[in-house]
Formats: sequence, C-alpha cells, structure tokens
Amino acid sequence: MIPFNKPFIVGNELKYIEEAVKSGKISGDGMFTKKCQEFFQNKYNFPKVLMTTSCTDALEMAAILCDIKEGDEIIVPSYTFVSSANAFALRGAKIVFADSYSDNPNINPKEIEKLISEKTKVIVPVHYAGVACDMEAIMNLAKEHNLFVVEDAAQAIDSYYTFSDGTKKALGSIGHFAAFSFHETKNIISGEGGMLVINDERFFERAEIIREKGTNRSAFFRGEVNKYGWVDIGSSFLPSEIISAFLYGQLEHLNEIQTKRIAIWNRYFEGLNDLEKNGFLQLPIIPDFATNNAHMFYVICRNYDERTALIRSLKEKEIHPVFHYLSLNKSDYFLRDNAEINIPNSDHFTDCLLRLPFYFDLSETEQNKVISSINEFFDA
Amino acid sequence: MIPFNKPFIVGNELKYIEEAVKSGKISGDGMFTKKCQEFFQNKYNFPKVLMTTSCTDALEMAAILCDIKEGDEIIVPSYTFVSSANAFALRGAKIVFADSYSDNPNINPKEIEKLISEKTKVIVPVHYAGVACDMEAIMNLAKEHNLFVVEDAAQAIDSYYTFSDGTKKALGSIGHFAAFSFHETKNIISGEGGMLVINDERFFERAEIIREKGTNRSAFFRGEVNKYGWVDIGSSFLPSEIISAFLYGQLEHLNEIQTKRIAIWNRYFEGLNDLEKNGFLQLPIIPDFATNNAHMFYVICRNYDERTALIRSLKEKEIHPVFHYLSLNKSDYFLRDNAEINIPNSDHFTDCLLRLPFYFDLSETEQNKVISSINEFFDA
Repeated sequence: MIPFNKPFIVGNELKYIEEAVKSGKISGDGMFTKKCQEFFQNKYNFPKVLMTTSCTDALEMAAILCDIKEGDEIIVPSYTFVSSANAFALRGAKIVFADSYSDNPNINPKEIEKLISEKTKVIVPVHYAGVACDMEAIMNLAKEHNLFVVEDAAQAIDSYYTFSDGTKKALGSIGHFAAFSFHETKNIISGEGGMLVINDERFFERAEIIREKGTNRSAFFRGEVNKYGWVDIGSSFLPSEIISAFLYGQLEHLNEIQTKRIAIWNRYFEGLNDLEKNGFLQLPIIPDFATNNAHMFYVICRNYDERTALIRSLKEKEIHPVFHYLSLNKSDYFLRDNAEINIPNSDHFTDCLLRLPFYFDLSETEQNKVISSINEFFDA
Repeated sequence: MIPFNKPFIVGNELKYIEEAVKSGKISGDGMFTKKCQEFFQNKYNFPKVLMTTSCTDALEMAAILCDIKEGDEIIVPSYTFVSSANAFALRGAKIVFADSYSDNPNINPKEIEKLISEKTKVIVPVHYAGVACDMEAIMNLAKEHNLFVVEDAAQAIDSYYTFSDGTKKALGSIGHFAAFSFHETKNIISGEGGMLVINDERFFERAEIIREKGTNRSAFFRGEVNKYGWVDIGSSFLPSEIISAFLYGQLEHLNEIQTKRIAIWNRYFEGLNDLEKNGFLQLPIIPDFATNNAHMFYVICRNYDERTALIRSLKEKEIHPVFHYLSLNKSDYFLRDNAEINIPNSDHFTDCLLRLPFYFDLSETEQNKVISSINEFFDA
C-alpha cells in the first residue's frame, strides 16, 4: 500500500524529548521551543516567532492581535482549510470569500479588490501547496485600504517570493502576521504544531501576552516586571516541549528533507508531463515570482467524474491519492447566515484537484508505480 | 538543589512515540489518543472524554458548549489560575468572583449563592490541590437556578467526592463538563496537555465538532456522514499523537505514581504536624466528602512577611518552594472594567500559601531536608 502520507523520524527527535525531560522542563517555552524559534528567525529573517500548538491557533492569535470585532470583514479564499476563516469567525468576523485564479488555487488579487469595503479589516492570502500568492499586489491593496495581511503559510515553509524590484523574501515575512503548520502532512512535522510569525513590532509584546493565557509571564521571566498577572484575554497557545523537541530534531535535517522532496516533486512533474501536453490533466504552475518548496504534488483532472474514476483506479492498485478542500462558501456554516454565491474557480479545484502520495520516505519504486498507474489510467 | 517540580519518564513514553510514528499517524486522534480516552472513561466512569492540547483549551471548549454570549455571567473563585476565568472572558462573559472558605482555598457555595443573578449561566468550581469542592451543594444551586457547572479539575485526577447518600463519584464526573490538565506539574504529565469530560450527552456531538475546527470530521471517520465540512465555530483542540503516546506511557503506571505521591504527601503531613499544633502554620484540610489525590502539599503561613522569610530561608538551602495564585479580582485585566471589590480569603491564600517541592522522583532524603529546614526556620 502506498499511503497519501507517512510521518517520519529523521534524526534526534526521540533523543531530544529525553533530553527535555532530563533538563527538568517539558512545559511550554523550554530550551527546544527557544531553539526552534531562533532557527526560524535566523533562517528566514522573521523578526519574531512564537511556537504554537497548531497553525489554527497561530491564526487565532493573529485574529486577536488584529482586534477583530463583531461585524469586521475579512477576505479569504473560498478554496482553503476551514481554519483560515474559522479563526476569524470565532472573534465575530464576517467572512468574505474571494475566488482563486482559474489555473492556480491561490487567491486572485483582482477578486480581493472587488470585495474590499469600509468594514474590511484583514486579507488572508493562503499560499496553496507552498506556492506564493502575489504578495506585492496584495500588500499594495492592504496599504491603500489600511488593512492587515495575515499570511496563511501552513504549507509554505522554506518558500520565497520575489518582488518586482528583485527583492526576495521568505513567505511568512511579508504580511503583518503569518501562520505555519507542522501537522504530520507538512514538510517538517510534529504531528500537530504550528507557529506565528510577527513582522510588525507593534505587536511583539501583546503577542507574548495572548499566548501566555493573557498574562505578562514572558516579561516576568525576562525580569522586566516583578510579578506577573492577568492583563489581557488570551489562551494557552504554547506547545509542550515534547513537541518542540521532536520538531527541532527535524529542523536539523531541513536541507536534506527539502532536497529529497524537490527530487520527488520533479520526478512527478517529469513523469506526468506528457499527460498535460496531451490535454488529459493540468500540472501545478509555479509563477515567476514564486519558488517551489515541494510541499505537495497535485494534478487537476478535466472534471469531477474523471477524478472519481482516477481515484478508484489508483485505490485498486493500493495507491491512496486524496482530494482537498470543499469551497467554504458552500459549507453549512456559511450558508446558515449567508445567501448562496458563485465562486467558480474554487468549485473547479474542489471537484478536480487530486493530491498524490508525497512523503520523505517515498521510494523511487513506489513513486514510479504511482506515475505509471496514472499514465495507464489515461492510456486506457 | 531541590526544585519545586521535576518531570519524569516512568515507562514506555518514548517507545510509544516511536510506535505512533511507525503506525503512520502522529496527527490528532490516532491510536494513543483513543487509548487515553478509553482509559479515563473506563477508570472514572466518565461518559465521554476528549483529549485536548491543554486544560485551558478544554475550558474554552466548555465555554463554547455552554453557548456563552456577551454579558452572560459566570461565577468562579478569585483564587484560581487565569484560565478558569479567561476561557469564558474570551467568549464575552462577565466574570463574577466568589471567595474561598477561610481555611481551604476551594470556592464556598454560600458565597456562590449570594452572587447568582438573572444573568448567571455557569458556575466553575476549581478543585484546588485536587481536593473536592462541595459538589452536592454546588449541584443543588445549579439545579435550582438552571445553571451549567464546569468543574475545573486541572489538579484533580484520581480524586473523589462522596454525596450525603453515600454515592462516591470521581471528580470530573459530577458537573456538566470538566477540564483536566497534564501540564508538567501535575500527577500525570505530557508537558502541556489536557482533556475535556462531557457528562451531559446532549453535548457529545457538538463537542466533537468544536474540537475538530468546527467540522463534522469525527462523524465522517465513523461513517455517519459521507463527507465532512464546516458546520460550526471551533478550533484545533486535539493534541498531537506524540503527546498522547507520552501520556499513555504514564497512565499505565498511574497506580504506582499515586502510591508514591500519597506516601510523599503523608510524610510531609507527619513531618510538619507539630508546627501546626504549635500554631506556626496551617496544613491542608481534606473534608470528609473528599479524598486526597496527593497532587500538592502546601502550608499556610501566618502572614505575608513570614512566608517571604520562609521562602528566603529555604532558597538559601537550595530548596525551591513556590507560592501560587494572585487574587484575580485584583488583576489589571479585571480592574480595567470593574470596581475594586474585597475578597478576603482569596487574598489570604494569595499572601500566605506556599507549595513545597513535590514530584515523582522526590527522594526520602530530599524530602527530609525540606521538612527539617522548615522546622529549623520556625525553631529559630
């Protein structure tokens, strides 16, 4: 059986958990959490990183920091994970859905522009498959209308965007905030896990407070206040050291992991290229301003029925591909308070996009089986 | 150095993490999360248990399930951790603080009764040090006024309450909901971690949805619906399997851990008994309706200055005792929107209560040093 995903141990993950226990601290913000935060800050030029229990939680922190109030509007793609919207709905926001490009699941800045109103407060670009949204266009819109930008970078570790002046920046370092995931399906994993990046220094202090259950405990441990107490709303957003120790064991092998994933991605692309040329399916597009972090490999079928048939055919060969999001504008939750709207490109990806098995330990033999099985399906 | 707390590995914690990775699933709700949930359900007769990333998160789930709206009032002790109140403040609740007994930090039902209004929706009894609040009195108040009861059982694993008719029930199984913690200072640990107990079956289904980012994913995996989507608000409350695997390694040794902790607790009690008889300090009280889960050992000094002197004296001997909560009614957050109020017993514990070093690996030699050092302080 070739599963869609397989978690992996690559280095000192278990040894570091043992070390954390021996160090006398496995609650949040111990030495491995700090090591992870420093690693990301140094490698990607993030001004401030706070590890969280999930990407969802990082998005919720961003929503609190943006001071979302009942009735504020946020603009997100409809083709995304529920948390991109839910984190803001939890704070009372009205969710406004924008469509993707026709040939790329990322949010289309032209669609965003049409939806901006007096009440808009935040734009949430989601870097689908780790491929950059057009951040220059989005940041320009945000500046013009005085909006916050929260990058949903769940899938976007080790990926970059190049501005028209040639400046190249890591995804997650461009908006006011960014949220990353270390869920088991991501490039670097801790089962569940995430982090919030704060690029705007006005929010450094409040971010720490909100993450520590609304207390100024972080400032206390740095000796900046002489006792700590309840000063704000907040939650327990910090991960166990067990999680951070595991993650740090992976971070030490980030380059090796990325090299391997890029090779897998390229092998899929080459192996399925002829099918695209012959019009059977569409392969991912990497715009000129984006890099490829090899988070995911997907194909876009011509229609829903063909995708269903392809899934069935692969499952018969013990290969497990997985479709992805369902347009959020069609969800029961959204339709409870909102009229039906038409978001065609999102629906197209809902119906036709299919993700192929992709994980660190995927062997060349296994991958060749996936590639030849897809070719055989369309040959038939 | 004798620290206040020391995390520990007692059995197969690391082996189970490795097993989880090999099983092909380390995101939430894998086999170890299920094993933990079943363990608690079976051992304590909890109708439904859902593991969470923290006790704070379990309290937040309870607040959402109670459908807290702006202006609803909840009654909590002032002498508690911020999360007991914050979880409800996050949903817009007005926090109403009740005082403790004069000789026991637990909330006094007579104080609760005075504070119940038309707007009251929830009572949050906190079982301080794992010792039961008077749940019969509290449940009677709740019935009379049609209120929810959310037990903050963060410290209360393996502890019981006996009703006046002789019925004995585990703490956490009495209110509508209960929240437990597996923070590194607790009896059973995973660094950070928690669980929500749902005793009222009307909330089983919605609890699963809220925990899964507002989706009906759990029902989907049980085959009850044929696709899953966004149906409600929610968050990512489920812990990584890495956390649950570690915790399950501890649960297998629960009896051994409890036997050892009770021995430590009794040794403290015997070693400090004379100081209480001579009026130097007060030791914990276990009411007749309660059991002792040996979560914590504290002493109550006669005044703030004496406690400060005792802390200093012990620290000079490399012993690290730790005081505990600060009355929440005096917090900056509460005072921002509320007038000052007087909650004298809570202030007394804020000023005078001191927790002694207490952990699984605390040796008899270390403990004797703590006991003799305290006796020497008062002899001088």
